[in-house]
Amino acid sequence: MRLTTTFAETRAAMRTATDRIAGLVPTLGYWHEGHVALAEAARRESDVVVASIFVNPLQFNQQADLEAYPRDVDRDAGIADAAGVDVLFVPDASEMFSEPPMTRVSIDALSGGPEGERRPGHFSGVATVVTKLLAGVQPDRAYFGRKDAQQLALVSRLVRDLSLPVEIQPVATVREFDGLALSSRNARLTSGGRAAAVSLSSGLMRAADAVDAGERSAAVLVEIAMEAMERAPGVRPEYAVVAGADDVQEIETVDRVSFLAVAATVGDVRLIDNLYLDFDEGRVAPDRGVWLQEPSAVYR
Amino acid sequence: MRLTTTFAETRAAMRTATDRIAGLVPTLGYWHEGHVALAEAARRESDVVVASIFVNPLQFNQQADLEAYPRDVDRDAGIADAAGVDVLFVPDASEMFSEPPMTRVSIDALSGGPEGERRPGHFSGVATVVTKLLAGVQPDRAYFGRKDAQQLALVSRLVRDLSLPVEIQPVATVREFDGLALSSRNARLTSGGRAAAVSLSSGLMRAADAVDAGERSAAVLVEIAMEAMERAPGVRPEYAVVAGADDVQEIETVDRVSFLAVAATVGDVRLIDNLYLDFDEGRVAPDRGVWLQEPSAVYR
Repeated sequence: MRLTTTFAETRAAMRTATDRIAGLVPTLGYWHEGHVALAEAARRESDVVVASIFVNPLQFNQQADLEAYPRDVDRDAGIADAAGVDVLFVPDASEMFSEPPMTRVSIDALSGGPEGERRPGHFSGVATVVTKLLAGVQPDRAYFGRKDAQQLALVSRLVRDLSLPVEIQPVATVREFDGLALSSRNARLTSGGRAAAVSLSSGLMRAADAVDAGERSAAVLVEIAMEAMERAPGVRPEYAVVAGADDVQEIETVDRVSFLAVAATVGDVRLIDNLYLDFDEGRVAPDRGVWLQEPSAVYR
Repeated sequence: MRLTTTFAETRAAMRTATDRIAGLVPTLGYWHEGHVALAEAARRESDVVVASIFVNPLQFNQQADLEAYPRDVDRDAGIADAAGVDVLFVPDASEMFSEPPMTRVSIDALSGGPEGERRPGHFSGVATVVTKLLAGVQPDRAYFGRKDAQQLALVSRLVRDLSLPVEIQPVATVREFDGLALSSRNARLTSGGRAAAVSLSSGLMRAADAVDAGERSAAVLVEIAMEAMERAPGVRPEYAVVAGADDVQEIETVDRVSFLAVAATVGDVRLIDNLYLDFDEGRVAPDRGVWLQEPSAVYR
């Protein structure tokens, strides 16, 4: 009999490690270049790439928002195939919830803040379904965008807390040629809204410039981001905040890996964006994301 | 590219199915014949048997109870080895909780009732750590005793809700030669308490006789069980209740798989026991458990 003390050791003792490395890209569907970037990152690092499409009802706190969420699996399948996805997992509602789910996974400590307060139940809904996907598919790695910074913190934490044997791989935000972060919701912007929506990212980039020039005060960065949104016509800013990347707690000085997050409503479309502030040995490096050279598929 | 619609299909597409069948027996340690029965069931049905020992702080609502819980890994290792366990997983606190856990798994709908109300937080603590063990070890089957009926309902449900690819295997309660259900807590009974403690199981067995004679009224079965406990000196009955085995909701008539659960305090030791009432095509079969022929190791 062998005595083990870690999960990894235990699994190694149980199974022969001949499996291929599997990467999972969990999505809500309606793919754009942001999803493609996730799939391409998985492709580079995995023997087999699985992507999932499921519009998770648990993470929508408003029924209308859930129903309005765009769906087009055939279109997604074409994009995913071209991006190198090997297996596209599209569970129907009966596979995901053959009976009304009673189990909830929650991380109250990471579900608050300005974003969590505006979306009651959202992060618990995300945590529950992400746990289900990771537990059920058992990938070796899973890919999440930095665009959803609080979600990334939450998923990274639940994987550690629940000993899920998967590495969470963050992927940089993909932006339109003018900086607007890609989002399925962008398709719902009017042309005037589209023009104004760039104020979220332009404020963040101005804040990045300030960081590069040595600024470390969260209040100053917040003011730069808020001002850009406030000046744009038809944009109703909700918040700008600097928070630690791991604990999502508001900070006053950029002295760790953190992010400057913003949210605003443009017309009737709620948008979020953020600027990661990577931190290494006292140096701060803003992650401006990956900028497309021409308008994304949404506008073609 | 292949399109899949179920977790099982997705895993099959990802991995070659050459793994051995692994059975997990999660325990708090201080093994007795009840644990041995779990290990033996796993041994019969698995290529490799893993047992875990971890005194889970999250499921103890009283710190004193946690500290009083008996621990003896060397003794357990000998018993587990003899029972055919291949891998004994004994994580230390830093492997289980290298940082204070923020994530909670909860099933409020299955965590109430007379047992849940007396142990606030207990079932969420169980759900969290069982999820962690199943997610981290990735067994094909996991073995749980019928003695903890509400825990069994909870674990069965969370595995379905979270799509954990594991079969939960219930194992019949092991009883002393006189009927007392085995429990690590029995070692703490005084000799007078030991004699009185049999009243929990003797009431259940009298209720089983009534069921065999055609009784289907929950109220009558509850009365039989309560009366036996009330008549025993030094026994303070807490409750007797008949509940559905899946939803743990109190029922009035035995018309489904259910259990008659009892709890009482004997001296300063809190004991629980139950009688499963298996149900098939209108017939009810009480599960009286497995009776030892001689006193268990606790008394040797």
